[in-house]
Amino acid sequence: MTLTILFAAGPDMWAEYERPLRDALAKVAPETRLVTEADPAEVDYVIYAPKSPLQDFTPYTRLKAVLNLWAGVETIVGNDTLKAPLVRMVDDEGLTRGMVEWVAGHVLRHHLGMDAHIVNPDHVWDHRPPPLAPERRVTILGLGALGSACAEALARFDFDLSGWSRSPKDLAGIACHAGPEGLMPALDGAEIVVMLLPNTPETENVLNAETISKLAPGAVVINPGRGPLIDDDALLAALDDGRLGHATLDVFRTEPLPAEHPFWAHPKVTVTPHIASETRVSTASQAIADNIARCEAGAPLVGRVDRDAGY
Amino acid sequence: MTLTILFAAGPDMWAEYERPLRDALAKVAPETRLVTEADPAEVDYVIYAPKSPLQDFTPYTRLKAVLNLWAGVETIVGNDTLKAPLVRMVDDEGLTRGMVEWVAGHVLRHHLGMDAHIVNPDHVWDHRPPPLAPERRVTILGLGALGSACAEALARFDFDLSGWSRSPKDLAGIACHAGPEGLMPALDGAEIVVMLLPNTPETENVLNAETISKLAPGAVVINPGRGPLIDDDALLAALDDGRLGHATLDVFRTEPLPAEHPFWAHPKVTVTPHIASETRVSTASQAIADNIARCEAGAPLVGRVDRDAGY
Repeated sequence: MTLTILFAAGPDMWAEYERPLRDALAKVAPETRLVTEADPAEVDYVIYAPKSPLQDFTPYTRLKAVLNLWAGVETIVGNDTLKAPLVRMVDDEGLTRGMVEWVAGHVLRHHLGMDAHIVNPDHVWDHRPPPLAPERRVTILGLGALGSACAEALARFDFDLSGWSRSPKDLAGIACHAGPEGLMPALDGAEIVVMLLPNTPETENVLNAETISKLAPGAVVINPGRGPLIDDDALLAALDDGRLGHATLDVFRTEPLPAEHPFWAHPKVTVTPHIASETRVSTASQAIADNIARCEAGAPLVGRVDRDAGY
Repeated sequence: MTLTILFAAGPDMWAEYERPLRDALAKVAPETRLVTEADPAEVDYVIYAPKSPLQDFTPYTRLKAVLNLWAGVETIVGNDTLKAPLVRMVDDEGLTRGMVEWVAGHVLRHHLGMDAHIVNPDHVWDHRPPPLAPERRVTILGLGALGSACAEALARFDFDLSGWSRSPKDLAGIACHAGPEGLMPALDGAEIVVMLLPNTPETENVLNAETISKLAPGAVVINPGRGPLIDDDALLAALDDGRLGHATLDVFRTEPLPAEHPFWAHPKVTVTPHIASETRVSTASQAIADNIARCEAGAPLVGRVDRDAGY
């Protein structure tokens, strides 16, 4: 029987998602009607976003699940008219891929010294090549799912890699350090540091004046992890006195980064707008199609919300 | 017996090469004396560079080979006092690694739209992530040793890869086109084009108004291959009218790129100073040490110059 899938996330999202959703659904559930309007009594699944006009689910009597386009469900989780399962977006594929691309790109950017060529007002032709990756010490703080995926990508270039995590790890191509006593050895002499730790009381300000002092002179800090991992004042002081060469930051204590924040105008800071790891239309569409196929096959939904817990 | 190796490439080179050469020699030929002065009659090998003061090899009666630090040997090949074998630098390891790093770095730079963050005077926070690599069409022109190594590195990120070469190739993760009739299909819709063809009469101006018109609107051209592959006027016209988004160029018809060349000041052109693929101190030192070990073992020298042919 044909499934009816109501896209209730609004016209802007429809413009972005229609084609990728149709493609993804065609692969896993060919017998579907993907529509933006439908008789509520005929709807099997609703694809949802926070600002949807759909608020009263009472007439959706055959609804099997509401699939949210975002990870956050705070605007719908308290809706008492919704009796069907609520599913938040789980887009591991897009999040991990995006992070690996962003981290590899910015590590190579700093390794190759690209900025001196991208901005070169004096038209300097300096024909000295950078060192090769095996001569470049890169340290990754955090070796969870994202950190280890980034380590794997950088190991393929043969960077001189070290890593640090709370619990001991054993990964190919990277010298793994662990625990409080492993932090300083992991940072010792690093020329590029990538921060991919979770935000916990133990990791707050893990990059501070003391840990910065272990890095190679002129080292580069890359933070796509969490804003509070860095003591911002210590970072700025080390950039200003030359101990650090650059910082490329994707996450901040307050986002968007406030207009008056010194990072914006600092010549040694690159701000990227929290884009390293974001839900992508293509992979999110696939995640939704896969969940519908799972549900139709009687398997558990990935990302089903515990409505009492609220997430 | 201890080998005496005379470093005759001058004090500047000595400062750069002493440590890497000692390290490389220690691995393959532990019984060596690496010196900058020696009794000519005791010297087994000379390490040489174009501006060396050493011009009369007559007293070097036990010399087994002269190992040049450069690929080019034009300043020594005609020296009649040199009777021992002359060896040019062959540093495939460094050349290929360097090219892969440079190409992967600049493809990721353009894929991620980094320049808008590196130079962002208005402090714009635009929280839309770039597409993922599988949604990015990248075409490599030239699938020789360097082109196929770059293809392999980009395939690991799952870019949507096409390639073109004179003769048919079959490489994993890349749609290979070949021959004159394969060029336009390879370029069709490409968003990033990497040029790694050799410089021949057939490849001159392969990137011209007609081939540029096949690319996706706003495409980026990356040229670490050879300057004459590009019709410079057609490139500039396409950048100016918006058909191309950017060009990142490492090689030019005249190098260093002349001060008055329009590429220098063009806002959509990045000039890098022929650094994508260059002999590196570390890999060149290893190549020299390996050649000495080979010679001591009675094996043929890699890069031995045919002095009649002149290269």
